[in-house]
Amino acid sequence: MICDILIIGGDGDLAYRKLYPALFHLDEADCLPACLRIVSVSRTALNAADFRNKVLLMLTEYCGAAPLNAKVQQRFLARLHSYSLDATSEAALSVLSREVFTDKSRDLITYLATPPAIFAPVCQSLWAVGLARENMRLVVEKPLGHDQESFLQINASLMSIFKESQIYRIDHYLGKETVQNLLTLRFANALFEPLWNNNYIDHVQITAAESVGAGGRWSFYDEAGALRDMVQNHLLQLLCLLAMEPPASLSPRSVHDEKLKVLHSLAPIKGRDVTDKTVRGQYTAGNIGSEAVPGYTAEQGATARSNTETFVAIKAHINNWRWAGVPFYLRTGKRLQRRYCEIVVQFKELPHVIFQDQTGRDSANRLVIQLQPEEGIRLHLLNKVPGLDDNFPLESVSLNLSLTDAFTDRHVPDAYERLLYDVMRGNSTLFMRADLVEAAWAWIDDIHEGWSTHKLKAVPYVSGSMGPTDSIALVARDNRQWQD
Amino acid sequence: MICDILIIGGDGDLAYRKLYPALFHLDEADCLPACLRIVSVSRTALNAADFRNKVLLMLTEYCGAAPLNAKVQQRFLARLHSYSLDATSEAALSVLSREVFTDKSRDLITYLATPPAIFAPVCQSLWAVGLARENMRLVVEKPLGHDQESFLQINASLMSIFKESQIYRIDHYLGKETVQNLLTLRFANALFEPLWNNNYIDHVQITAAESVGAGGRWSFYDEAGALRDMVQNHLLQLLCLLAMEPPASLSPRSVHDEKLKVLHSLAPIKGRDVTDKTVRGQYTAGNIGSEAVPGYTAEQGATARSNTETFVAIKAHINNWRWAGVPFYLRTGKRLQRRYCEIVVQFKELPHVIFQDQTGRDSANRLVIQLQPEEGIRLHLLNKVPGLDDNFPLESVSLNLSLTDAFTDRHVPDAYERLLYDVMRGNSTLFMRADLVEAAWAWIDDIHEGWSTHKLKAVPYVSGSMGPTDSIALVARDNRQWQD
Repeated sequence: MICDILIIGGDGDLAYRKLYPALFHLDEADCLPACLRIVSVSRTALNAADFRNKVLLMLTEYCGAAPLNAKVQQRFLARLHSYSLDATSEAALSVLSREVFTDKSRDLITYLATPPAIFAPVCQSLWAVGLARENMRLVVEKPLGHDQESFLQINASLMSIFKESQIYRIDHYLGKETVQNLLTLRFANALFEPLWNNNYIDHVQITAAESVGAGGRWSFYDEAGALRDMVQNHLLQLLCLLAMEPPASLSPRSVHDEKLKVLHSLAPIKGRDVTDKTVRGQYTAGNIGSEAVPGYTAEQGATARSNTETFVAIKAHINNWRWAGVPFYLRTGKRLQRRYCEIVVQFKELPHVIFQDQTGRDSANRLVIQLQPEEGIRLHLLNKVPGLDDNFPLESVSLNLSLTDAFTDRHVPDAYERLLYDVMRGNSTLFMRADLVEAAWAWIDDIHEGWSTHKLKAVPYVSGSMGPTDSIALVARDNRQWQD
Repeated sequence: MICDILIIGGDGDLAYRKLYPALFHLDEADCLPACLRIVSVSRTALNAADFRNKVLLMLTEYCGAAPLNAKVQQRFLARLHSYSLDATSEAALSVLSREVFTDKSRDLITYLATPPAIFAPVCQSLWAVGLARENMRLVVEKPLGHDQESFLQINASLMSIFKESQIYRIDHYLGKETVQNLLTLRFANALFEPLWNNNYIDHVQITAAESVGAGGRWSFYDEAGALRDMVQNHLLQLLCLLAMEPPASLSPRSVHDEKLKVLHSLAPIKGRDVTDKTVRGQYTAGNIGSEAVPGYTAEQGATARSNTETFVAIKAHINNWRWAGVPFYLRTGKRLQRRYCEIVVQFKELPHVIFQDQTGRDSANRLVIQLQPEEGIRLHLLNKVPGLDDNFPLESVSLNLSLTDAFTDRHVPDAYERLLYDVMRGNSTLFMRADLVEAAWAWIDDIHEGWSTHKLKAVPYVSGSMGPTDSIALVARDNRQWQD
């Protein structure tokens, strides 16, 4: 695992907020080989001293409350190198192959922390200067296109130079502990799998709620919208992990094949279906907690009119034996009441009730997997209320597991730590194979086409709410409700 | 529910420790009709003032830490009446029908807190003096015989005067909140019933461990032994609730019929089988915590030699579709490490494992229902250990529900409260129908006969241990272990 890390766009937001802190934690955990160098390349790069100072500042901000370990800090800063150059230019990039990455036996991990528009020329340059060798791994991240066609284009430009096994497409949701734990929960326990089908599960809800708005990157967001920004990747990945058949092993191929089957089984939402099965929303001015916030079109950098959705709710179905008839309700949005991400697996009603008290009969059993802000698992049960009442009064109680509490003595790694370390180890199980991204886009594209054909408007919802009333109605039409 | 309560043996241990405190709590909870009188009858009864003082003393000792509510105390003491008479004598008892229970429209609950030897003459007297009328309910408690034959005799003497519907046979375990909650857990939740069979359950353990010895009532205990004292009633009742088919309703008849089916399905343990499927133990001197305690035959009142078991472990099978092949391991004993009562439902191993880490693979999923000293439910799961390890290290964690914590604001009624209140309400669901007791004795009698035929010795175990090594071996032979 002798390797170096090259970050193209190393002076950008993602690098400072996520990559350096993750690498620092890996260093702290003795997961970085002693000789590993971290080379930042950027057109706007600072000089060596300023760069290290800025990274240090960011580490202090993003690495948690405790002061940095002085020894690790020193070691880490010494790994950092910064080059001010245009990575799309072969001439400029050649300095790296000539002067920096001269030892070809060392693996090289190149992280493209840049807009996908320059993926192609950067890869071209990497190849031209001889860096795109067999032992390079390339890490890329969303947005990988804005539809299937543009994804295939971007992907082709990568694949013309690299093999699939060299490309690591990050969906950082897959690096979260609880998301990995979904695999454990389902496949290391004998308890849930027998219940994990349409005989026992009534429906599934996946909610990824943000309280932030689109401010700051408004025009970028306005091009994408919630469906492309959140559903195409994060929510569909969660859905895959929840719904997939047990893989034969944890190998990338086994896991990816099973996830792909789920995506291929997703019932397309086409044409007029979008009016019944999807809801688009756009936030208006309101309050998040006690803070007054502007509406979407009044954000800084916004244009006065936009039909981009900042909220989307979808009723999805998976056409296979396991899930026939079980709706998967997905929703995500900005400027919602609070930031949280949660999966609710709602079990079916009892076939026969012997208790007079019908409290919570219809929603008695629920498995809640919380991903954000805290990671934990709750199992809701009906329990007898202690007391002398003759007719067995019932009350919903929950068996709780807070992962934070259960493992207090352990540092729970950030998603990027896990994923960068997996790249170093060459384990792509938690990454997205090209066909997965492609299949996800195919499903998303149908919805977009339906929206555009039927001119589906993004309906307003007040900031600080849980989305438009149409979202409530989407679920209520099936006699169900969102578990907020 | 206008009624009076007559306690025959009202000056005895059970009455002072359990019945008066339970009735006091019921009074406190406004569950006793204003006019209800509590009449104690005993050959050794104290005069009215002394009796009330003694009850008050006992209430203070057994009703928990808080001082008694003065108003309730006054009201309760005014209900108490005491008669010094021999209840087996018609002449003596007639004073009650002449002077006390003159209003025949009032229900009368008669609690026989006496040895069963005098049940027959007492019932005869009650009948002779006209108290054994249709609106009398009779409450009796273990020991109801020491085998099936003696039970049938005792029962016949009751049934010659009362109808089955008038007789309430108490097993106080059935009054415990968690035991009632077993019904809720299984039948108010859709989650467990699909797993509740030999496809998914590996085995069940029921442990009722006591830390006290037989001292104080040695000769009584020596006649009985652990099998008769604990298994015939408490443990078999728990087994019935765990194993029974879903009843059509919570009516006494539905519940009792299903329990009876379980008892009839218990595979008899006969003849030489006892050597493989049962273990008898007798405690020797040792330490419970830091306290040195004597061996069984050195207890106060003991004879030097005895083969009575103070510990018993049994491997039981239920011969029906649901439970074929699933052992139910029962154990109970005195002078064990600590006092607790727990049911462990151990689910089967995974059919296929995709995780390298095999930690706890064989015992991953376990539902633990704790009845004593605290009441609670724990569900053991395997979880991913947070961290960067490549091969998904696993760790057993548990989802916990402490009933005490969940319902802190509620007084959890003692078993006797619940049961006495049920007698007042005429609800016999939580009592033992005669045929249940009879069937339980039939199974117990087979074991006793096997023991006696094959001269099975009670093997020694050190006080403060969890029983003899033979008990460990009983389970280890099946490649399993007791969950202590």
